[in-house]
Parts: sequence; structure tokens; C-alpha cells
Amino acid sequence: MAHQISLKIYYEDTDAAGIVYYGNFLRYLERARTEFLLDRGISIAELHYQGLFFPVIHVDIHYRKAVKLGETIDITTEIAEMKNASVVLKSHVLRHGTVLAEAHVTFACIGRDGKPRRLPEELRKLRQ
Amino acid sequence: MAHQISLKIYYEDTDAAGIVYYGNFLRYLERARTEFLLDRGISIAELHYQGLFFPVIHVDIHYRKAVKLGETIDITTEIAEMKNASVVLKSHVLRHGTVLAEAHVTFACIGRDGKPRRLPEELRKLRQ
Amino acid sequence: MAHQISLKIYYEDTDAAGIVYYGNFLRYLERARTEFLLDRGISIAELHYQGLFFPVIHVDIHYRKAVKLGETIDITTEIAEMKNASVVLKSHVLRHGTVLAEAHVTFACIGRDGKPRRLPEELRKLRQ
Amino acid sequence: MAHQISLKIYYEDTDAAGIVYYGNFLRYLERARTEFLLDRGISIAELHYQGLFFPVIHVDIHYRKAVKLGETIDITTEIAEMKNASVVLKSHVLRHGTVLAEAHVTFACIGRDGKPRRLPEELRKLRQ
Repeated sequence: MAHQISLKIYYEDTDAAGIVYYGNFLRYLERARTEFLLDRGISIAELHYQGLFFPVIHVDIHYRKAVKLGETIDITTEIAEMKNASVVLKSHVLRHGTVLAEAHVTFACIGRDGKPRRLPEELRKLRQ
Repeated sequence: MAHQISLKIYYEDTDAAGIVYYGNFLRYLERARTEFLLDRGISIAELHYQGLFFPVIHVDIHYRKAVKLGETIDITTEIAEMKNASVVLKSHVLRHGTVLAEAHVTFACIGRDGKPRRLPEELRKLRQ
Repeated sequence: MAHQISLKIYYEDTDAAGIVYYGNFLRYLERARTEFLLDRGISIAELHYQGLFFPVIHVDIHYRKAVKLGETIDITTEIAEMKNASVVLKSHVLRHGTVLAEAHVTFACIGRDGKPRRLPEELRKLRQ
Repeated sequence: MAHQISLKIYYEDTDAAGIVYYGNFLRYLERARTEFLLDRGISIAELHYQGLFFPVIHVDIHYRKAVKLGETIDITTEIAEMKNASVVLKSHVLRHGTVLAEAHVTFACIGRDGKPRRLPEELRKLRQ
């Protein structure tokens, strides 16, 4: 089963159309995958301080239904694809089980010099 | 030729990896398309006050190169596809002509009741 | 004792200086006061849908220490002052009990017409 | 006369109350002071890459009137106070000359080690 976090929508998340601003979903995806990985013993923050970064190289996101102030939503994360130097995570944004959005986010792995690195072993062994 | 705006990168745009946060590109795409439309006599803000909204229903964005503090980037916007109730805009993020990111963003059109509306005539006639 | 929430710092919160962007603390203050009020039976979101809004009219915030990626911080909220048409909330941002920031935020209360309203009774009776 | 920049309000800037989110004014203040300094030959980005940072240590901001989608606002910046290791900038947010907000923002100066530094000479000589 996919990993899941919940979060509540505050004014900071919304825009004048009364709904969550489309760009903010990318923040939620980051929170969800950070916790997904932490749950599996991988700390993005620790790797950051060691000089390993995971830049996003592709996002494909479908917005199905609007999310509003005061609502609580769930974000699932699972691995869709794992290669040596990139990984694709798949997420759903849900409210009481209804899909509000779905996204595929692809990451690369680079060092402090900006050059590509193999994904760390602990990450690659999450391959399902 | 595609419409183009320029913008400068401040601390607000960046993250601890020293580059523009991936979610912030969606802000720039909004600024670029708002100006693209304004240039063609269409004010998203005016339509908003008249009760017409353009929710994003799909984003596909490739990130090619990182953008850093203090850099100035250009965002192009052009129409990729126009249907009766949705439009796809294509944008490039550039620095001195080098492509840093490219995106396709799809919008629907809804009224105050959240129900789909035909795109306004002035928008549909932008079809190229 | 002051109400308290915890939150974790993700890339979205940070900037190129490697610390939380100063403007983002205002987001955390919003989250903290929303939960503070909810805990006392007052839903800002519900009041929003009823047409009652609480615009911030003043912020005074001292930043004492930087906050970094991966850290977990606590935000306290308590009432500093309550008048008929405005309220001042006092918050501390803490990490393991060390004060990282302290803020006073003042709110007014307005209706859909933008005109001042008395604070709702349920809020005024939180006066300590 | 105070230095001035103009900026337009997009959906990204607003919240569900239909106005600019209070935290976003701190972004505008950053844009304004960055341009104010650049105009005087001081590049915050260049100093950043040289290892000199200007963390905000205090913000005092009064919000007088709401700002809405589609509006264009002006932000002025001037030096309110200059000491050896800190500077206070004073800004006004204006719409057609009407004051919407006014802010005092205080900065310190630190090096890569996080320790205080004297403000660079070029900045200190801006003292009016």
C-alpha cells in the first residue's frame, strides 16, 4: 500500500479563486515524498548535508477537483519506476478517498559539483 | 514569435539547494500567461471579477537546467492547442537563449458555480 | 500554558542562504493560530464561509536564530491583548525550547463588505 | 526621494479572502530592497556568492489597506538607520500614492560561518 500523509489547507495555500493555488501542490508532493523516504530510513536533509541532491527533472500532474480552505487532504507516495540515476514517484491527492490530483515526479541525483550521481544504494533497494 | 517576459530571481524563489524551487516555476508560468493574454487584450483579473475562472487541469514540465539567485530568466508563452472548453499553453524558460525548462499547461474555464463554460470568444479567436 | 504546534522544514521553506526564508515564518504563524483557535472551538475556515474575515493589520517579528532544512520547530500561540474589534496574538518559534523567533500579530475583523465588525463573542471570551 | 519599484498582483500572491496574503508582502520588500541596492551598485547576489549574507532580524509592518488581484502596486525603499553591523530599511507599499502598508526591516550581516560581520563599506556609505 502507498505511504500517506495528511495536511490541512490554510489561507497560505489558497488563491483569490478560493481554491488551492496549482503551484502549491508541488510543495505537498515534496512533503509527502520526504516523509515517504524518512519512513524507509532515508533522510533527504541528511543527504543534503552530505552533498547529495535530488533535483526534480519532470513533473506531470493532473488536477481533477479543487481543494478549499479548511479541508484536510491526504497525499500518497509510491515508487513508479527506479533507474540507476533517476526515480519516478507517483502520488495521489485525496479527500475522503476521492482523487483530487495525481502526479508523477521524476528526480535525478547530483553531487555538490552539479554532476550526476548514481542513486544511493538505500534508495535503489526500494525498487519494488 | 512567442510572447516573452523577463524576471529576476530573488531569495524568495530559491531553496537550500541554492536553486529555484521546482514549484516556483508554476508561479512564473502564471505571470507569463497573464501578460501574454493582457497583451492580446484579455485580462484574467477582469474576467475573475466577472465570475469567469481558468483552473489549471494539467501541467507537464521538464526541468533542464537549474536557475540561481540573481539570474534573469525569460519565459515565453504561446498557444499549443485550443478547444471549445480548454486551452493548452506552451512555455519555455530561457537564460540567454538556453532552454532551462519547458512546460505545457492546460486550462479549463468555469463559472462561479464551478461548472464548465465555453472559453470566451476573445480567447478562442487567439487560435493560431 | 501557550498552545503549541510542531512542523518540519522542507526545501519549500528554505532559501539559497540555506535557512528558512523570513517571509515563511508568517505562514507558520497562520498555521499555529488557526490550530490554536480550532482547539478552542473556533474555525477560521467556517467563519470565512460565513463571511467573517480576520485581516492582519500589524506584524512585529524578531528573528533570533536561523532555522534549517530537516529541523522540526514548535510554534506557540497565546492571546496578548483583546479589544472589541482587534486581537493581538503572541507567538514563539522554538527548537528544543530555544527561542528562534518571537512575534506579535494583530488582527481586525471585517465582513464581506470589507467593513469592520466586532470580534465574534466566542473569540472575545478567550480573553484571559 | 525614495527608490521605487512596481509590481503586479497575480493569483500566486492572493489568498481565499481575495486579497494579497500578508506573508507575501515580505517577498515584495525583498524585491524592492534588492533593486534599491542594485541601483546603488550593490549586488546582494554577488555578495551571496562571495559569502556575505544579510539575514533579517526584525520586521515591523503595518497593513493599512488590502491589495487585490490585477492591481499594480509600488514599493519604495529608503535607509532609515545605519549602524556598523545592521541597517534598517523603511518601505511603503502604495497604489496611486495611497499607502497600503509600511514596513521597517532590520538586517544584520554575517559570513559563511554564521558569525557577525561589519556591513561592507559600499553599504555603509549609503548612510544619508
